[in-house]
Amino acid sequence: MSADKAPRHPTAPTTALSYDHVVDAHQRIASMIEQTPILTAPALDEALSASIFFKCEHLQKTGSFKFRGASHAVSHLDEHCPGVATHSSGNHGAALALAAQRMGIPARVVMPQGAIQAKVDAVGRHGGVVEHCAPNQHAREAGLARWVAAGWWPIPPYDHPHIIAGQGTLGLELMRQVDALDVIVSPIGGGGLISGIILAAQGLPVNQRPRIVGVEPSGADDTYRSIQARRRISDHQPDTIADGLRALVGELNFEIIQRHIDDVICVSEASIVSAMTWLWEDLKQVIEPSGAVALAGVLKHPERFAGQRVGVVLSGGNLDLPSPLIDAA
Amino acid sequence: MSADKAPRHPTAPTTALSYDHVVDAHQRIASMIEQTPILTAPALDEALSASIFFKCEHLQKTGSFKFRGASHAVSHLDEHCPGVATHSSGNHGAALALAAQRMGIPARVVMPQGAIQAKVDAVGRHGGVVEHCAPNQHAREAGLARWVAAGWWPIPPYDHPHIIAGQGTLGLELMRQVDALDVIVSPIGGGGLISGIILAAQGLPVNQRPRIVGVEPSGADDTYRSIQARRRISDHQPDTIADGLRALVGELNFEIIQRHIDDVICVSEASIVSAMTWLWEDLKQVIEPSGAVALAGVLKHPERFAGQRVGVVLSGGNLDLPSPLIDAA
Repeated sequence: MSADKAPRHPTAPTTALSYDHVVDAHQRIASMIEQTPILTAPALDEALSASIFFKCEHLQKTGSFKFRGASHAVSHLDEHCPGVATHSSGNHGAALALAAQRMGIPARVVMPQGAIQAKVDAVGRHGGVVEHCAPNQHAREAGLARWVAAGWWPIPPYDHPHIIAGQGTLGLELMRQVDALDVIVSPIGGGGLISGIILAAQGLPVNQRPRIVGVEPSGADDTYRSIQARRRISDHQPDTIADGLRALVGELNFEIIQRHIDDVICVSEASIVSAMTWLWEDLKQVIEPSGAVALAGVLKHPERFAGQRVGVVLSGGNLDLPSPLIDAA
Repeated sequence: MSADKAPRHPTAPTTALSYDHVVDAHQRIASMIEQTPILTAPALDEALSASIFFKCEHLQKTGSFKFRGASHAVSHLDEHCPGVATHSSGNHGAALALAAQRMGIPARVVMPQGAIQAKVDAVGRHGGVVEHCAPNQHAREAGLARWVAAGWWPIPPYDHPHIIAGQGTLGLELMRQVDALDVIVSPIGGGGLISGIILAAQGLPVNQRPRIVGVEPSGADDTYRSIQARRRISDHQPDTIADGLRALVGELNFEIIQRHIDDVICVSEASIVSAMTWLWEDLKQVIEPSGAVALAGVLKHPERFAGQRVGVVLSGGNLDLPSPLIDAA
């Protein structure tokens, strides 16, 4: 059984997801999460003739936005829950482990061999138990199914109303921190984050609503292709350095994205590395490849953002860092 | 002629440096500099039983606090100045280049061979001209002397009232951003930053003044030894990964430090690397070795900071980053 296909949690909203669900989610989790800061870079603004506002979600607890959705999903659990389980290449697993730990609920995370070590370690550090599996979708789902069969409750990574509403709180915060944004640019993997941001933006009158632009690695462009095809494509073999975006867009996520997204930009591997390098060297922020994808999209098409106030989501900062300086010491 | 021995600028204060000079400096440069943000790390606070407030000066223009002092020194120049010159292993040079560029004044920076490439590049990027010299104090001073003989005005890196007052604005900002600090921890190299912070703290009533603690690499512990000896030691062969702290404490700086500092902690090379690694991995901030030294001091003696509100200066973030991910792409 796929986590995404798991029975929805009993308290999940039965009506269509909307802005109000994001506001509810924010009320539930505001005290658990960080309100992450905004950073700006005058030299970049000058080069792009735009005002870029980086939403620093790599500074969120567990180092990615995933803690928002996980905290929100866990906040809906009740005392009958014996434990939660998921499969994850990393950030969702660590986020769920910490969110569950804070509720005193055990967590199991099925992770593919070859996952980023920093992400594997983070699950354990937050009290979760990692179960390794072969690096393919079937093994991941089979591993999770065993826990679900044993009575544990699955918390899917993106294709769930609670997860989407939780991730949407990032958009809510960003629009409160920065006035009059013309556009918000976010990476797309499974689509949990961008569909949440879309809902958050619906809270503004139409003529004040920022455009929502998604960015995908060209090697994981299933959302772009799905929009072109007007149906969710599932023959998807992601191949990208952006390990957090090697996912098929979710069903519920695609419904929302298809209806409301303004643009999707696809970027090369080299441009992701180049954006990440700029973020390290100039913004001095440790950002993982997936977290640099939104900036790569802006750098690819600066003409689409010129003269505008642009929110760019830095979605995570977990990666295996080299330690060359230890040799130098 | 040494930059530190150069004739003081005509408008330099002739009375003893005080808190008021820092306030004046802040009024002059507030519109030129960034008010750098404060970051916190709940997990670290829990581990240390303290409240740590990181002053993010690696996010200052040119990537270090040096831009404060350089901007202040340059703000006192007049139209007779044909150009400014200094010698620098890096951050002061880049800071001076940008500060001078903004005033339309040319800048020459004498830099030792073997300086961090990112720092060499930064001087050029900000419109300064780099002149390479042999990696020793004599060659640096001789290189600068040639420019001074040609009529250029020297801007020393730390041993000057304008530089000290300018760096002190960091302390002023930090104490405005964070209430009721018990202690401020700062690295010591030439002593420009910590002597400025000392002056900034004098603005508070004695019973509300934070303690000022300096941290030095054990391989560049001349301030510690000078305090013990009650005289400024000059037989100094710095040997440390913290390239920004390979300097002899200045005369004016030592006067102020000796009179007012509360404690000096010396830290090993391994502990500097370890602090830097934590800052990369957990705080997600790119910090250079010199910038991690203050945290290394706190981690060495957590008992001295337990239960306290501690301002820790992250003084800079310029280093030659590895690009292993480019291979992975």
